[in-house]
Amino acid sequence: MPVRPSEFIRLASRPRLVLVMCGLPARGKTHIALRISRYLSWLGYRTRHFNVGTYRRTRLGSQKRHEFFDPRNPEAREARRDVAMAALSDLCDWFREGGEVGIYDATNSVRSRRDAVRARCENEGLAVVFIESICEDEALVAANIRQTKLHMPDYAGMDPDAAVADFRARIAHYASVYEPVAKDEGAYIKLIDAGRELLAHQIQGYVPSRLVSFLMNLHLVPRSIYMTRHGQSEFNKQRKIGGDSPLSPQGEEFSARLRDYMIAEVPSNELMVWTSTLQRTIHTAARIERPTTEWRELDEIDAGECDGMTYEEIQTRMPREFTARTEDKFGYRYPRGESYRDILRRLDRVIVEVERERSPVLIVGHQAVLRALYAYFMDKPTRDCPFLEIPLHTVFKLTPTPYGCDEERIVLGPIIAKGESVTLP
Amino acid sequence: MPVRPSEFIRLASRPRLVLVMCGLPARGKTHIALRISRYLSWLGYRTRHFNVGTYRRTRLGSQKRHEFFDPRNPEAREARRDVAMAALSDLCDWFREGGEVGIYDATNSVRSRRDAVRARCENEGLAVVFIESICEDEALVAANIRQTKLHMPDYAGMDPDAAVADFRARIAHYASVYEPVAKDEGAYIKLIDAGRELLAHQIQGYVPSRLVSFLMNLHLVPRSIYMTRHGQSEFNKQRKIGGDSPLSPQGEEFSARLRDYMIAEVPSNELMVWTSTLQRTIHTAARIERPTTEWRELDEIDAGECDGMTYEEIQTRMPREFTARTEDKFGYRYPRGESYRDILRRLDRVIVEVERERSPVLIVGHQAVLRALYAYFMDKPTRDCPFLEIPLHTVFKLTPTPYGCDEERIVLGPIIAKGESVTLP
Repeated sequence: MPVRPSEFIRLASRPRLVLVMCGLPARGKTHIALRISRYLSWLGYRTRHFNVGTYRRTRLGSQKRHEFFDPRNPEAREARRDVAMAALSDLCDWFREGGEVGIYDATNSVRSRRDAVRARCENEGLAVVFIESICEDEALVAANIRQTKLHMPDYAGMDPDAAVADFRARIAHYASVYEPVAKDEGAYIKLIDAGRELLAHQIQGYVPSRLVSFLMNLHLVPRSIYMTRHGQSEFNKQRKIGGDSPLSPQGEEFSARLRDYMIAEVPSNELMVWTSTLQRTIHTAARIERPTTEWRELDEIDAGECDGMTYEEIQTRMPREFTARTEDKFGYRYPRGESYRDILRRLDRVIVEVERERSPVLIVGHQAVLRALYAYFMDKPTRDCPFLEIPLHTVFKLTPTPYGCDEERIVLGPIIAKGESVTLP
Repeated sequence: MPVRPSEFIRLASRPRLVLVMCGLPARGKTHIALRISRYLSWLGYRTRHFNVGTYRRTRLGSQKRHEFFDPRNPEAREARRDVAMAALSDLCDWFREGGEVGIYDATNSVRSRRDAVRARCENEGLAVVFIESICEDEALVAANIRQTKLHMPDYAGMDPDAAVADFRARIAHYASVYEPVAKDEGAYIKLIDAGRELLAHQIQGYVPSRLVSFLMNLHLVPRSIYMTRHGQSEFNKQRKIGGDSPLSPQGEEFSARLRDYMIAEVPSNELMVWTSTLQRTIHTAARIERPTTEWRELDEIDAGECDGMTYEEIQTRMPREFTARTEDKFGYRYPRGESYRDILRRLDRVIVEVERERSPVLIVGHQAVLRALYAYFMDKPTRDCPFLEIPLHTVFKLTPTPYGCDEERIVLGPIIAKGESVTLP
């Protein structure tokens, strides 16, 4: 039997790629590393983040002051080097167990260190790309220190101003010896001021190219992403899947409540509204009166020949399909329709666009599609997508933070009598 | 009825994007413009290339010497400006008729000209991205002059050395006033030495991001791409579609001939062999003994529930399917399977990888997949894919040239008796 092309994300030649972060402290290296890790994992690559700072805190204690980072302190230098090499060893071991993209997160601020890291990786048959984060904008650095560094275990319980002063002294130690990545160091990406400018040097191949697209669209402008399913539809009431039915009276009621909630949340004109091309999402968003874009990529999973059927009908009339779906909910493709895996591929464009957008966005979508988007934002394994709970008449407010995403769920009702509501299982 | 998600390439918000080429003569601007145009057209965007050089030759005559390009020649300067603005007007008109990506191909070598172009475009509601090609490597410029400029109508019938001298004088005129694109000119991409380095400044959005990936992988290393279908399979003999059947004796014979041909063509070890994951392509390539990669993306169109049937069986047992397929061969999706449109999407990765590859590549594939790849290389409308002729036992040798692709077809036989060979119609 031919291999199902829906599985083509399992690439013929898997990558064996090490992304080596470089840059002074407080340049967003860990933020970038985590964003990359989440994106590549969601795309289906076995990705892992190795944070040398975490190794240091675990092995050497978590309360280091700036003197520990002084390059003129030979003992501390030795200790820091040992920790960095331990993390690198673990990374190499992990590749031997089938890793695909390893992210080596440290300052790597001098040439000799980068040369050593590259030699070790290349010796293991791993390709290396340096990712250097540079901030020409001092305000970005200051914001980063306040937002993330003060919360490090290193400064637990310390006066914030003293912590900032210590961290700035730490930066100064690194800056005193810093050597930017040079033209003869092979492949690298330089990110300047969090995505304003990007320089790609000798970057080739699929994963590094995708990364460049992704990194180019990242930004640090704070804003929230709101996601909700459409209000209850007539098909929901009849327990039918798919279709393009209008809202039920309760769905209309939700639409009114959603309008009031969103206008209170984002009173200004800057809110962007994204719907699918199906009328139940368009009508749910219609009362909000903000710039609205209809996206085909946000349409519900295509149930193909099962479109318009209830699950009971599928079980009775297509028992083979029903069983196949139960056995592999992630990979199962409806006859003439789509699988969850298919949905992830078409949502890649939505992900890149939502990352790019600087305004708050309200996405009025459908269950399967929102499960996939939720998995991306909240860093859930994609295999678990079909089992994530995305109930009707609930707004998910997701707010990106430097190291992840905050989540709030706002139940707007109206409450639906049991048996009347259908959540696609 | 829900919109088929296979159509998601028709984007909710279509781009309205002008790519403004910039750079001295002989920096590969037209080459890059044509490559972009071919790629974006293949991806489904309405793309057009506006070459100011062609406008000039049409309107002002084709035999201009370098004096015409001297900035100290005010009359000629005026004439060149008028021609450039005429091309820009046509570009704007074309957007009013539904254009999506316009490529404005001229030197645009001074700031004042670029400002005027940008103002005009923005006035029409069009986004602008400058694409500046810079060559630090003099050898690339010299090669470009010899390869492309000597063949321009401007130098028809002229002594090559005199033509080179004249063209170098033309470059010097532009160089005397050249102003590189500056940080305050908005969004731009700088390409340095044909892809060795790329700088993206304020680049956001889906199409510009895709372009960065694509441009990063372009190169000018001359090499050929060889494409062939597998040798005749047992299923071919039985007129069945799909499946994963072994080669017939005649298919084995083709495999031997293909080996002899390829080893004669590329005696060195540098040949890369790419097959699908189906045994008929793997066995066809097996005798060649060069590094071989199996790609799921190269698997034949998934015929879903029709896999293993003959067309006669489909017509008898699934007449509705047969008719639907006849009516729209490009958009038709087999039950539980794929359409040509689906295939194009999964081949995007192969396109980027084949562009990246610097060695000659032999692709042993299948009919539908090779039709889609052929359409890309030879710049055929994707709608015509299902009707392109890709016979068995024939090697397509495609050699990229600066402005397109040369094609040679090598029939290796063995000749198959009529009725025994099946080409998927």
